[in-house]
Amino acid sequence: MNKPSILLSLACLAACTSTIAEKHVAQTSVNQPKNIIMIVSDGMGPAYTSAYRYFSDDPATSAIETTVFDRHLVGSATTYPAPVSGYVTDSAAAATALATGVKTYNGAIGVDVNKKPLTSVLQAAKNAGKKTGVVVTSQVNHATPASYISHNESRNNYNALANSYIDNGINTDVLFGGGWKFFIREDRNIVKEYQAAGFQYINSYQQLDSLQPNKAVIGLFADVGLPYAIDDTNSYRLSAMTKAAIKQLENDNGYFMLIEASQVDWAAHSNDINSAMREVKDLAVTLEYLETYVNQHPDTLVVVTADHSTGGFTIGANGVYQWRPQLLRKMTQSTYAIAQYFSKHTITQQKLSEMFAGEELQSEDINEINHAKSAAEKALANYLTLSKEQQAEKRQPDVVKALYQALNKLVDKHTNTGWTSHGHTAVDVPVFAFGAQQQQFTGSINNTDIAKNIFALLAK
Amino acid sequence: MNKPSILLSLACLAACTSTIAEKHVAQTSVNQPKNIIMIVSDGMGPAYTSAYRYFSDDPATSAIETTVFDRHLVGSATTYPAPVSGYVTDSAAAATALATGVKTYNGAIGVDVNKKPLTSVLQAAKNAGKKTGVVVTSQVNHATPASYISHNESRNNYNALANSYIDNGINTDVLFGGGWKFFIREDRNIVKEYQAAGFQYINSYQQLDSLQPNKAVIGLFADVGLPYAIDDTNSYRLSAMTKAAIKQLENDNGYFMLIEASQVDWAAHSNDINSAMREVKDLAVTLEYLETYVNQHPDTLVVVTADHSTGGFTIGANGVYQWRPQLLRKMTQSTYAIAQYFSKHTITQQKLSEMFAGEELQSEDINEINHAKSAAEKALANYLTLSKEQQAEKRQPDVVKALYQALNKLVDKHTNTGWTSHGHTAVDVPVFAFGAQQQQFTGSINNTDIAKNIFALLAK
Repeated sequence: MNKPSILLSLACLAACTSTIAEKHVAQTSVNQPKNIIMIVSDGMGPAYTSAYRYFSDDPATSAIETTVFDRHLVGSATTYPAPVSGYVTDSAAAATALATGVKTYNGAIGVDVNKKPLTSVLQAAKNAGKKTGVVVTSQVNHATPASYISHNESRNNYNALANSYIDNGINTDVLFGGGWKFFIREDRNIVKEYQAAGFQYINSYQQLDSLQPNKAVIGLFADVGLPYAIDDTNSYRLSAMTKAAIKQLENDNGYFMLIEASQVDWAAHSNDINSAMREVKDLAVTLEYLETYVNQHPDTLVVVTADHSTGGFTIGANGVYQWRPQLLRKMTQSTYAIAQYFSKHTITQQKLSEMFAGEELQSEDINEINHAKSAAEKALANYLTLSKEQQAEKRQPDVVKALYQALNKLVDKHTNTGWTSHGHTAVDVPVFAFGAQQQQFTGSINNTDIAKNIFALLAK
Repeated sequence: MNKPSILLSLACLAACTSTIAEKHVAQTSVNQPKNIIMIVSDGMGPAYTSAYRYFSDDPATSAIETTVFDRHLVGSATTYPAPVSGYVTDSAAAATALATGVKTYNGAIGVDVNKKPLTSVLQAAKNAGKKTGVVVTSQVNHATPASYISHNESRNNYNALANSYIDNGINTDVLFGGGWKFFIREDRNIVKEYQAAGFQYINSYQQLDSLQPNKAVIGLFADVGLPYAIDDTNSYRLSAMTKAAIKQLENDNGYFMLIEASQVDWAAHSNDINSAMREVKDLAVTLEYLETYVNQHPDTLVVVTADHSTGGFTIGANGVYQWRPQLLRKMTQSTYAIAQYFSKHTITQQKLSEMFAGEELQSEDINEINHAKSAAEKALANYLTLSKEQQAEKRQPDVVKALYQALNKLVDKHTNTGWTSHGHTAVDVPVFAFGAQQQQFTGSINNTDIAKNIFALLAK
């Protein structure tokens, strides 16, 4: 062999090794990524990333532009929980599967079907000497982040979960999201305890730019979840938090970070496609930043998936072969914000049309919104005449919620959007990966394989 | 380098070539597959292959068994048509994209937006000296097969399409599916013309086993489409036709075959999850056979995708975190067949329960089916009192169809299945590939890329 051939062969040997090693992570310790960024987009089934392509299509060009999701799709993941919970998962069981590699019952946070605590990839990364971070748009003790950080037999034990973040030993160097309600309580101020443990605390996005370096940080930016992206003071708050988190986390031993685009799911539970698309956009902008970051730091792995799909969302409905995202591109506030406004103001065609970004509305559209408001107001008035005992047996009618539902249906009508549920469905979810060892996540995999692969990549 | 190292390097050189060549098919002429099998599962969006896993889950084991789809998923494909038709495709535009690599308007068969004929991969394979075959469960001149074989400005011109199969020069060596209505007509007997051109003709599945070798064949097994798999004399007729077709097609120059699981779409248009699952099963059994075939013939490429998703089907609905396929596993006939029966017989709880495989039904279930029947019968009786002129302005009420819809809703209720449409939606569809050069189809690709890749693989 002459010299160039030998060099080519040697180059190939390295490439071949990684090809042959595909799907056999546990057998190799080479090419371990220094940094691992795991991203869960809650509720973002395949229809959402497809729809986002059409939502973000530039109507000024004849081509339909590809998205950051298109560039990094590597396969799909199952979402089913442990047999005891059937085929349709909740966010807790799915997050536990993604975090620990073990299927469990719906509602479980980091525990198996016998309620036995499980080690998460975040905890394993911490044990391996890496820094760890969690960045979410929900409260930081919501199901997904909690499954990476803690253990509890029920996702609903929010205060207990917040307590455990301190009581079990702090295992995150960066913790960003919402949650004043759970961390600054009358009975216990957990933020103060974080500060006593050496953490800096911030409570506004502006402070993300002036963090003290090399010092752990807890940042809480809302009472519960952050506002919807479309309504927030920074519509790209996931991206802003991610950038700040990475600056804090970078160190010679590397880091593990969980990022959750938490509110695709929340919008979808309300069948609110307008807010859902903007949540996906915030994630897409975050991923575009991470593309650049991984180019500069090729020892970083980014894995993105959803825990399940929410809402039974379909791109088109009612036998009509159309989906019309034009309205969604123009809107500047959520239907929830519009509902809040109209709960206190008279609904006029002009004002509604203005809030629907100039969309031409029909009188029947206005009538439906007005009807929803007056029906809810009447139900509320009736409710308020009841005795306390009678009230305790019923749910208090909510005018904002009734308006929100009616406005979402109006958006559906104008965009031809379909939904089958206010809950979850069991379609497989897309998996995206880029950076070091991204090939480990290709094909159709079980959601538990994602954690198993990360454990293997963390193992010495 | 010692000898083993050199041998390893040489082995790697071959492997490396194919790795480096990924996504650059046009630049290489090595490792071209001898045989290419393109499979379109009409309407089979991602929810169908996920649901099929749960439908075929063996309840006797705690594990959920993986399916043939799980073993071969490589990515997903877009489905959107040319801009003139928006974001939601019909089967004709999607089939034209898959067959020719060109996006076109909804309704177009093998022509571009200017109605100019396009060359399909089947035609290119024929020109390259390969044998060609088409195996479908619809009529053989339906949108998908027609887009590979012919050209027409409208998918609805069924007779013109059938004529063109002869008039433009026969370009298939094997043609299996339905279609007596279009090929044996009063004005023209196209089957006789095929026979005059040297084809053997068969019209029953039994004859698939006794075909004359090395002789082209046309097999038509139904007036229009074949019966639903669950009702057919052979529920695995796609698999049976495929096996017979391959025997006829094998030759030294190789072959190109289009297979279509046509009726996932048809069942889905009727929101009939029972029939849809059995159509997917017929496809899955076909793919399991092809897995074995490719193991024995590694120079064969199999690519499987859908043209779009139909029905807005969701696995779970109505806010309930369940999908219950148990009923679907037990049923032995389609709801369409049951509707035909009850259109002529009294509906009793015992008989309905028997036809629902012993499922426990409630009196309200029976009432709903009875109501649908009597309402349709009443509407039909009214219709028949009208003058011919009045009748011409209305659609004749269809008792079987009304019963079919009501029975499908009953299945949905018992399985917690969701639908948003009797038409198509725009979610990306899964892509499966195995065999020679399967890696060309990985990641998120445009539906047109599938044809472009096949053209490149066919090019000398």
